[in-house]
Amino acid sequence: MDIKAALALEAGKPLIVDTVQLEGPKAGEVLVEIKATGLCHTDKYTLSGHDPEGIFPSILGHEGAGIVCEVGSGVTSLKPGDHVIPLYTPECRQCKSCLSQKTNLCTAIRGTQGKGLMPDGTTRFSYQGKPVHHYMGCSTFANYTVMPEIALAKIRKDAPFDKVCYIGCGVTTGIGAVLFTAKVEYGSTVVVFGLGGIGLNVVQGAKMVGAGRIIGVDINPKREAMARQFGLTEFINPQTLGKGEDVVQHIIELTDGGADYSFECVGNPTLMRQALECAHRGWGISTIIGVAGAGQEISTRPFQLVTGRRWIGSAFGGARGRTDVPKIVDWYMDGKINIDDLITAHLPLERINEGFEMMERGEGIRTIVEYGK
Amino acid sequence: MDIKAALALEAGKPLIVDTVQLEGPKAGEVLVEIKATGLCHTDKYTLSGHDPEGIFPSILGHEGAGIVCEVGSGVTSLKPGDHVIPLYTPECRQCKSCLSQKTNLCTAIRGTQGKGLMPDGTTRFSYQGKPVHHYMGCSTFANYTVMPEIALAKIRKDAPFDKVCYIGCGVTTGIGAVLFTAKVEYGSTVVVFGLGGIGLNVVQGAKMVGAGRIIGVDINPKREAMARQFGLTEFINPQTLGKGEDVVQHIIELTDGGADYSFECVGNPTLMRQALECAHRGWGISTIIGVAGAGQEISTRPFQLVTGRRWIGSAFGGARGRTDVPKIVDWYMDGKINIDDLITAHLPLERINEGFEMMERGEGIRTIVEYGK
Repeated sequence: MDIKAALALEAGKPLIVDTVQLEGPKAGEVLVEIKATGLCHTDKYTLSGHDPEGIFPSILGHEGAGIVCEVGSGVTSLKPGDHVIPLYTPECRQCKSCLSQKTNLCTAIRGTQGKGLMPDGTTRFSYQGKPVHHYMGCSTFANYTVMPEIALAKIRKDAPFDKVCYIGCGVTTGIGAVLFTAKVEYGSTVVVFGLGGIGLNVVQGAKMVGAGRIIGVDINPKREAMARQFGLTEFINPQTLGKGEDVVQHIIELTDGGADYSFECVGNPTLMRQALECAHRGWGISTIIGVAGAGQEISTRPFQLVTGRRWIGSAFGGARGRTDVPKIVDWYMDGKINIDDLITAHLPLERINEGFEMMERGEGIRTIVEYGK
Repeated sequence: MDIKAALALEAGKPLIVDTVQLEGPKAGEVLVEIKATGLCHTDKYTLSGHDPEGIFPSILGHEGAGIVCEVGSGVTSLKPGDHVIPLYTPECRQCKSCLSQKTNLCTAIRGTQGKGLMPDGTTRFSYQGKPVHHYMGCSTFANYTVMPEIALAKIRKDAPFDKVCYIGCGVTTGIGAVLFTAKVEYGSTVVVFGLGGIGLNVVQGAKMVGAGRIIGVDINPKREAMARQFGLTEFINPQTLGKGEDVVQHIIELTDGGADYSFECVGNPTLMRQALECAHRGWGISTIIGVAGAGQEISTRPFQLVTGRRWIGSAFGGARGRTDVPKIVDWYMDGKINIDDLITAHLPLERINEGFEMMERGEGIRTIVEYGK
């Protein structure tokens, strides 16, 4: 079928919006009409060409929401008309990882997904007669996509697509890191490095669980007001600290010993180290959420760990996609989490490149592309 | 009073055994007759002069056992005749750290202990009229020492000093890292880097909790036999791997994905990285036990953590000294742990330097100095 998609034909070039061909779902697959998608830094990173695992040509986008149109043979958990959120981290409930009950990182289709292919090793997209790759198993920069059944979370039908699509990545990544990965307790002192689309959701998650102090660190002073709206209690701009004053030492003093929990939401190894080292001796847990550039490494003195700090990471907020995503949608519908204020722009697909330009300029938090509007 | 001690007069020189003066216990302090002490790599490290926090002149030794001779005013938990193990990690049960219930790293006397002084800021030892520093709050290379009450674990009287002194450091550090820090579960796959005095106790701890596979990594082939006696199921000598074969990749293949728990027991940042990276994606926990050299750093790609590995550390096995050490002594007396076979030499204090020479040559596991024999 003919669909409309924003194509990433080559690295470092703007997306091309054009008609693309999509094959229908094969066994275990589902055709989804995407109604809305968020623009995430990870899409931008891959488009830039700096992502060593980036594949071109492809259809980017991994933060969507839509409606099931058609199911392939053997699909039992979904039917046409169901509302769904695509999952770049699937949940098969049968692989060693799912059955471990210790991780959300389902490995059922990891091999093919990383190669931009469906589980059978082929692609459903083509353009001008040539195959086009899938991206993160989702490709939501298209008004229709094909997904494996295990990579779709079924959600309630009254949830607005242009808001809950953000749960497909940023919201879950931030809130989940607090709730599911670090398991922040009531009354804790939390420090958040980076107050963008992920960091604000970490702040929101920390507020949800009743953190006593939520301290944000960002060099952009404009982030403070919105972060306070989401629960931030203190703001630190490292660029306005006194001369020679170190942000780690500053936080340790401010918190009488360090953070119970810290989160790195930028993808910068220097900040990852600061986040670890500002964690409290004896028990502070530092969670890496941000994705660092290719080949970059983190480092610290092992003494930091031997004296009780724990260095961990979180992918997709530790959330099990089919189990937890519908719950998070419920939380949004029940008014327990705020997504609306994080969505700072809506664009039609034709203007998707403007969204990435805004991201480049550091404007706004989340841009949503809506289809058919 | 006159006592007999092995003095560390200056860095890099052998210890000098001579008569030293010791003041009696002040308020909150206890005079202990040391009956036996183990020789640990940490003593050797400090004596070498490479420890930036080493202070000279001092009396080293931190792995002892003895009898209370006299208590200072205000001491309520101990009386003359009690058998005790000195604790370089005290347990005051009143500081922020103890009350957190999240760490064993009591901070009550950290400041003065690190400076080689008693909590009142002075030293009890002197030699030829000049003050001599305490070491790790213990100084067990002397037949008498003075300790703060909070730094003594009271143990049963039928436990042999020349065996249970090892619980003052190595045994607890190894077994505790498994039981208290990493909390290894029954059936787990465990990988241990370094099969010396700490690593063998990690192996023993892993066996105690019923680990399914216990894989040891050491470049000394002589370690294998004894490690198997303590519970090792597989041995890897990285130097005999095939050409170009990487130990991390080898372990991942051998274990179908990696270790559930790995432990670094050497103090080598390269091994710390290997231990982390051979941990299983999604849930592997890697614990650093070894003490790295001054200024050395660990590093890895943050992706290792984002995909679910956890990097943690353990000091004194996560054990609360006054609470857990007496229990471990009971385990030894009940035949649940083997210390006897780890003790490979006994020496009188006069020959203590021979013990460090054996350590330098990699001979044996633990040398014990016994006083009055």
